[in-house]
Amino acid sequence: MTTLFGDHPATAPLEDRDVQFLDTTLRDGEQAPGISLTPAEKAEIAMALDEANVAVIEAGSACTGPGERETISRVTDLGLDARVTSFTRGVKNDIDLALDCDVDGINLVVPASDRHVERKVNTTHDETVETTVELVEYAKDHGLWVEVLGEDGSRADLDFLEELMRAAFDAGADRVCAPDTVGHATPDRMLEIYARLSKLGPTSMHTHDDLGLAVTNALVGVAAGADLVHGTINGIGERAGNVAIEEVAIALDHGYGVETVDTEMLYDLGQLVAAKTGVPLAPNKAVVGENAFTHESGIHTDGTLKDDAMYEPYPPEKVGRTRRLVLGKHAGRAGVEAALAEHDLEASEDELAEIVSRVKRLGDRGKRVTDADLLTIAEEVQGREHERRVELVDLTAASGSGTPTASVRLEVDGEERVASGTGSGPVDAAIAAVKSALGSASNAQLESYHVDAITGGTDAVVTVEVEMSSGDRTVTVAASDSDITTASVRAMVDALDRLLADVDTPVLSDD
Amino acid sequence: MTTLFGDHPATAPLEDRDVQFLDTTLRDGEQAPGISLTPAEKAEIAMALDEANVAVIEAGSACTGPGERETISRVTDLGLDARVTSFTRGVKNDIDLALDCDVDGINLVVPASDRHVERKVNTTHDETVETTVELVEYAKDHGLWVEVLGEDGSRADLDFLEELMRAAFDAGADRVCAPDTVGHATPDRMLEIYARLSKLGPTSMHTHDDLGLAVTNALVGVAAGADLVHGTINGIGERAGNVAIEEVAIALDHGYGVETVDTEMLYDLGQLVAAKTGVPLAPNKAVVGENAFTHESGIHTDGTLKDDAMYEPYPPEKVGRTRRLVLGKHAGRAGVEAALAEHDLEASEDELAEIVSRVKRLGDRGKRVTDADLLTIAEEVQGREHERRVELVDLTAASGSGTPTASVRLEVDGEERVASGTGSGPVDAAIAAVKSALGSASNAQLESYHVDAITGGTDAVVTVEVEMSSGDRTVTVAASDSDITTASVRAMVDALDRLLADVDTPVLSDD
Repeated sequence: MTTLFGDHPATAPLEDRDVQFLDTTLRDGEQAPGISLTPAEKAEIAMALDEANVAVIEAGSACTGPGERETISRVTDLGLDARVTSFTRGVKNDIDLALDCDVDGINLVVPASDRHVERKVNTTHDETVETTVELVEYAKDHGLWVEVLGEDGSRADLDFLEELMRAAFDAGADRVCAPDTVGHATPDRMLEIYARLSKLGPTSMHTHDDLGLAVTNALVGVAAGADLVHGTINGIGERAGNVAIEEVAIALDHGYGVETVDTEMLYDLGQLVAAKTGVPLAPNKAVVGENAFTHESGIHTDGTLKDDAMYEPYPPEKVGRTRRLVLGKHAGRAGVEAALAEHDLEASEDELAEIVSRVKRLGDRGKRVTDADLLTIAEEVQGREHERRVELVDLTAASGSGTPTASVRLEVDGEERVASGTGSGPVDAAIAAVKSALGSASNAQLESYHVDAITGGTDAVVTVEVEMSSGDRTVTVAASDSDITTASVRAMVDALDRLLADVDTPVLSDD
Repeated sequence: MTTLFGDHPATAPLEDRDVQFLDTTLRDGEQAPGISLTPAEKAEIAMALDEANVAVIEAGSACTGPGERETISRVTDLGLDARVTSFTRGVKNDIDLALDCDVDGINLVVPASDRHVERKVNTTHDETVETTVELVEYAKDHGLWVEVLGEDGSRADLDFLEELMRAAFDAGADRVCAPDTVGHATPDRMLEIYARLSKLGPTSMHTHDDLGLAVTNALVGVAAGADLVHGTINGIGERAGNVAIEEVAIALDHGYGVETVDTEMLYDLGQLVAAKTGVPLAPNKAVVGENAFTHESGIHTDGTLKDDAMYEPYPPEKVGRTRRLVLGKHAGRAGVEAALAEHDLEASEDELAEIVSRVKRLGDRGKRVTDADLLTIAEEVQGREHERRVELVDLTAASGSGTPTASVRLEVDGEERVASGTGSGPVDAAIAAVKSALGSASNAQLESYHVDAITGGTDAVVTVEVEMSSGDRTVTVAASDSDITTASVRAMVDALDRLLADVDTPVLSDD
């Protein structure tokens, strides 16, 4: 059984279906509040989408303004395999503006629901059909690929929607779409609509996630015959966002054996779009969220160590990721033992029990248990003394209207060293001071630097997490303080100290 | 037609169905990496869930440790209307530990898939059935409400699953559940499972969102007969999280007319859980995300001003929220006109066109257009001069090993004032200095202070957004700088200046 809806008359087997994506990250995604992509950013994202085998890229909305048209032209100039289109409203001038950008096609939006026909556009059913036919013919005469979208289609009168779309096909439209513009539809409603529309010709899906049903609604349409799915990377878009391409792609692949895009690129695409748009991913976002393949609880970690697939639906490599096991309040023996082994440490049964217990106590306080925490606990339990090679004695940072300046006093292998630095801000200045004090030893790579979003008051405690590496060793450290500079320096100094622990070479300063 | 799956034989009409929620935010939700709730926090969340009419609250997992048992006891002591339960593994000791916490019932988890039966628990089908029967009888003998969950049920052999659950019911179980533990199932698979299980007795749904199908999978089970849905607030949980209760509640309400919890409490519940767990919400999270009822684009803002429902599936008040119209690169005339009116400003047609054009240009640079930005643009276009009452002349902040200290030099109504302050960090100290310099005028409320998460390097530009109010006026301001202290002070001073613009009273300092 590979149909979505059992023996519903409208469904067809999904296997061997040819399903492709229209990516609208650069148009509907970018319409989300606070997002604006530069032409260079849009071009970079378009190239990555093309490489991942996305069939159609809606690059923008030509009528928005000259800046937007420059962007669309930049994408059409790339010579991608993907078809590049512009959104156009139901007016001739929009089509002309799209033609100016040299697009391959247009996504022509006309009103479909009575609310949009009457109250928004102040027109009638008949006039809407007439205008649509004229515009489709005009666009086809100019050599464009034409997809007609009936806006708010999911709330439209179905007889009118069918009349409108039949007229669009008769006028030469390549495909039609009944977008669930406001994320209103149930899967039943989408099935009802697409059971009728897909008899007329090729159809596309365009769904939003206001009810948490975006993925299913897209799949339902495909089951009913649609073969192009509109979506955005990370599901960005107005309100609750458009359907996330990575979720539809994985649901089709894992759930129904239907291949679409290159799924191994999905994680990198998600990271790219998150970075360029500034829209953060929730840690529990499906497929691309930080925790999608992370296991903390004892039961899950233990199970995963026995069998990768024990607590995962599909392997992380399928979407270009790797698995992470982390420690916290739900830690168990197997997970702690594996984490110790990563640092070449072993523990007796009794020691392990005590280490697990202390890790859980630390986790109980709501703290993430970092590598540095685990190493400190292991040392305490095993009676080994950690001889710190680098310790922060004193830090002063000044900023404001002048050049941000900082100084640090470190104890390095028992000797005090003082150094100063400047930077773009006090954190940057303080890190420069630390680097200067440590010379070549500070060549360890700062793999990541992260501060959670700060909300509430100006006196909130800030937690800084850093990951640093040297050779093949990696260490994570977190530090918290009301002062972001102090927290950043403490985390970095602790990380450097841990990385130097196994090294015999002296730490030479820059002097 | 109010069934989910058309005329599939297993479906039943959803209207008039009695569907309730089991909230597992405090157990499965808290198992997500990095989350740890204190007993007081769990109690606060449990009270809010109870008030929202959640039927069952799984308060934790008694076997985890003494801290967790203290927490569960704290919740059972609250005397809630909701049934309070503990997760228990398939061992007698876990049930005893749950009894120690005085719970009303247990969520007894036994292995169901061959992977879990054989590879994780190293047992057999027959032994699993035998153990389950013994444990159910033991729990029932001790007066507990018992729900039996067959772990990894969605990947289980269906004949065995049915045998196991029939035995559980025969032993006295109150209900059974086939959790989609790893978020593997398609809606078809869930339908197949629940078409069989729901013939045996009362059933529950437990779904995860790894494929983006969590909501649909829960609904499919309900359509097939299940009447209790497990979920978490904000969809937190392991990997991609459990199904979000707010999404299922709204999908059932808006899509199928089925009432469950008090939906008007959903937004506050989401905010509470986000604050206590520290798990941030994506802006495009359905129902509770910041942008779920926010409109920026010209088309959507214009439509919404004509008719609230034009671009929303259901009114924000239904989930305890209000609508927001914001300005950015997609702004249009109607939205800008409405925003100006909020500040008691009017503009001629020509002025409005120019203001819209400048707002869009600012948005094009990727900036959110705040109230302060709009007011400045309007002043420039309308040739009105904004006489600043408060201006930042100079700022010095020092922090590190000593007491965080800052001083500011402000020009207030043409006079220079210098003040200093201390605080928990340099931002806090600088804000204290500003407050001291402005005296009673600084009594404006800081409604919100927000800094986006910082990732990348230590020299990242930080954007600080503040919302301040005085009387019935509210103003939003954003400022960016590599130094978080400078950005914070600039934003706050600009906001205070705007709030003082309409006030005649002199600004008195503390001196």
